[in-house]
Amino acid sequence: MLLNVERARAVMEHEGLDGLVASTLENIFYLSGMWQLGVELFPYDDQCYVVANHERPDGGVVVSSMGDADLTLQAYPSIGGVITYSSFFRELAPGVELLEDERRLKEITLDRAPKADAMEALAAAIEACGLTRGALGVDERGANRALLDELSRQFSQLQIKPASQIFRQIRMVKTSEEHERLVGALRATEYALRAAVDAAREGVTERDLFTVFERAIVEAGARPGFALIRFGRNMALGQVPSGDTALRKGDYLWFDVGCTKQGYRSDIGRIIAFGEPSERLRRLHHASKEGQTRAIELMKPGRPARDVFNAAVERVKECGIANYRRHHVGHGVGIEYYDPPILAARTETPLEAGMVFEVETPYYELGFGGAFIEDTVLVTDDGARILTALDRELQVIGA
Amino acid sequence: MLLNVERARAVMEHEGLDGLVASTLENIFYLSGMWQLGVELFPYDDQCYVVANHERPDGGVVVSSMGDADLTLQAYPSIGGVITYSSFFRELAPGVELLEDERRLKEITLDRAPKADAMEALAAAIEACGLTRGALGVDERGANRALLDELSRQFSQLQIKPASQIFRQIRMVKTSEEHERLVGALRATEYALRAAVDAAREGVTERDLFTVFERAIVEAGARPGFALIRFGRNMALGQVPSGDTALRKGDYLWFDVGCTKQGYRSDIGRIIAFGEPSERLRRLHHASKEGQTRAIELMKPGRPARDVFNAAVERVKECGIANYRRHHVGHGVGIEYYDPPILAARTETPLEAGMVFEVETPYYELGFGGAFIEDTVLVTDDGARILTALDRELQVIGA
Repeated sequence: MLLNVERARAVMEHEGLDGLVASTLENIFYLSGMWQLGVELFPYDDQCYVVANHERPDGGVVVSSMGDADLTLQAYPSIGGVITYSSFFRELAPGVELLEDERRLKEITLDRAPKADAMEALAAAIEACGLTRGALGVDERGANRALLDELSRQFSQLQIKPASQIFRQIRMVKTSEEHERLVGALRATEYALRAAVDAAREGVTERDLFTVFERAIVEAGARPGFALIRFGRNMALGQVPSGDTALRKGDYLWFDVGCTKQGYRSDIGRIIAFGEPSERLRRLHHASKEGQTRAIELMKPGRPARDVFNAAVERVKECGIANYRRHHVGHGVGIEYYDPPILAARTETPLEAGMVFEVETPYYELGFGGAFIEDTVLVTDDGARILTALDRELQVIGA
Repeated sequence: MLLNVERARAVMEHEGLDGLVASTLENIFYLSGMWQLGVELFPYDDQCYVVANHERPDGGVVVSSMGDADLTLQAYPSIGGVITYSSFFRELAPGVELLEDERRLKEITLDRAPKADAMEALAAAIEACGLTRGALGVDERGANRALLDELSRQFSQLQIKPASQIFRQIRMVKTSEEHERLVGALRATEYALRAAVDAAREGVTERDLFTVFERAIVEAGARPGFALIRFGRNMALGQVPSGDTALRKGDYLWFDVGCTKQGYRSDIGRIIAFGEPSERLRRLHHASKEGQTRAIELMKPGRPARDVFNAAVERVKECGIANYRRHHVGHGVGIEYYDPPILAARTETPLEAGMVFEVETPYYELGFGGAFIEDTVLVTDDGARILTALDRELQVIGA
C-alpha cells in the first residue's frame, strides 16, 4: 500500500473533506497504484481521475478513457471500479478462452458502454462514491483547466476545493512500502553513480559519463530522471547538459543525479576528486558536509523545518564558508522530486516520523565550481537515519 | 532554427496577435532552444516564460528564476535577453578570469538585480518586447493557473488570448532543422529496436527486452520515452508494462516505442514473428500494412486529413479485417508525441509540405494480440516520404 490511509483520513477531516479526486500522474498513482502512461506522455490532453471517499481512500473509482483502459489493470485488485469514456477499439478473438487480465479488460471495455466524455464519467464516479453532497477536494492540476468550475456547476450541493496541496500534505508522511520504494530508487542511483565513477579516467568527457550513468540506471530496473554530471568549475553552471569537457588530473566530478523506480524518486549529490584535491576544495567540501551533518543531527519528530535550516547554514559558515547563503537545505522526496516540507528559513512545519528528505548544503562559485553533498534521510522516532549507502567523506580517485 | 519564423508570423497575423508567451516545456523550447529541466521536473511549480513579438518571434525575452538561470545559457545567442526573479546564490571566485558562459551567467545573475517574483519579471519582459497594447497569445498550460487573469488585470490595454493550441498550429509545419532532429530520434529508436530484436531468443522475457531497448536508447544519445514491448496476445493489453512473459517459438514481438533526442520525439511500431508466423498473423499484418500504405500514398499537400483516414480504414477492411474499426490512423509528431493534425474521421485540416506524421493502422484483439505497423512520414510537394529505415514487411526471426 502506497497510500497512508490513516493520514489520508486525518487530513481529510482536518480540511473538512468527504472525498478526493486525483487528476495528475502523481496523485492517480498514489491513490490507485496505476502509473498512468497516457497522462505522463500527454499531460495537457489526457484526462484520468481517481475518486475516493473518506471511508475507503484506498479503494477509489477510476475514470479512464477507453484507450487507456488497459492501464487500469495495474490498479487491481484494490480499486473500487472503473468507469470509461470515449471510444477505442479492441476486438474479441473468436473461440478463445480469455486469461484473467483479458477477461477483466473485456468486462471494462466490451461488456459495459462507455460514457460520452470524461466529465460524464467523472460525475458517475462521484455518484458511485456517494459524494454528491458535502465537500470534495479536487486535484486542480490535471489536463482539464475548467474542472473545478464544471464540477461546481454540475453538483450544486457539493463544495469543491482545490486539493493539489492537500494531496501533498497527505503524501508528506510515507508508509513502509513507500520507504522501500524510495530505497529501491536510491540503490539504483548509487549503482549508476558507482558505474560512472568507475569509468572516470583522464580524457573521458562529461557526456561519456552521463551515458554510462543513464545506461546503468536502466540496467538497475529504473527510469532515467535527471543526471547533472559536470567537471570542476562547470559545476557552477550545473543544469546545462553534460558537454565535451574532458577530465584532467586535479579536476573533480560533480554529480547531482536521480531516477524513478516503481514510481518513486531519488536524488543524490556527490563530489569526487580526480587526483589529489586542492586545499580549497577540501575546505569547501568540509564546510558543506559539516552543515549537512548538522541538519541531519537535528532532524527529529517535532522539530520545525526552519530550525534545521538555520542551524545548517550557521554551521557551514562556522566551518569555512563565511559568506554562505542558501534558500533551502533540503526537501521531502516521494512520488515527486520535491515533496513538502522544504527545509527553509520560513517553513514552520514540524518534522514527523516517516518523512523522507533529501538533505543538501550546496555551494556554487563561478570560476571555481563549488561543493556539494546530498543524502536521503528518513525521520524516525529515534532521530534521522541516513538511507544513502555511499561514503560521505570526500572521495579521491585516480591519485 | 527550430522555429518556423514565417509560419509563426502568418499564424499570429491570422489570429490577430502581436506577441506570444510560452510557459510550457515544449513551447519554451520551441521559441528559445532551451530545454527547461526545471519545468520538466516541476511542471506544477516552476515558472519560466519566453515572450516574443511579431517582428522577432525567434528573438524572445526569457523570464527565469535565479535558480534556473544557468539553463538560459542554452538559449544564446539567439535570445533577446533574460529577466530573472526570486533568489538563488552563486558566488564569484576571487581573482579568476571567467570563461564566456561564466561571464554571461554572472551578467544575468550577479550584475543585475532579480525581480521580486515571476509576474513582475514577466511584466518587464512584456514591456521589453513592446507588447503592452494589442493582443497577446499566452500559453495557458504552464504552472501558474491564474496567469491569463493576472495579465488581464495588469495590462488593461492588452487583449489576452489562450494560445496553447495556437502554438501547436505554428509547430505543425516543421523546418528542415526539425526534420533532421526528428530523423535523429527515429534512428536512435531503430538502433534500439534492432538491439532488442537481436536479443530475442527462446525464454527471454518482455522485461529483458525492455531493458535492452532502453539501454540502447541511452547509448544512441537519446532519452527513453515509452517502450511498449509485449509478446503475442499481451499486445492487446499493450500499455501495461512489459512483464515476466517468456518468449516461445510461434509467438511474436510487439513494439510500440519512442524516445526523445535533441527535444524531438519518435514513435515506431513493428511486429516481429519469432518462428514461423501463423496464417492468421500473416493475414492481419497484411491488412494492417496495406491500410497504412494506402494512407501514406494519399499524403499530399492539400489533402484533407479525414480523406487519408477514410481511405486507410476502407483498405484494411478490403484486405482482410472486415470488422476493422479505428479512431485515427496517425498523428503529427514533433516536440510532442502527438502534434496536430490527427488523421481522423472529422479532421478537415489539409496536409502541408513539411508536416511530419506517424502513420499507423493498429488492430487489437483480446485473446490473440493484433497487428501493427507504424512509420514516420514527411509530407513533401512530391508526396509522402517514409523516414523510417526499417523493413516494412513482416519480419520473421528464429525460424
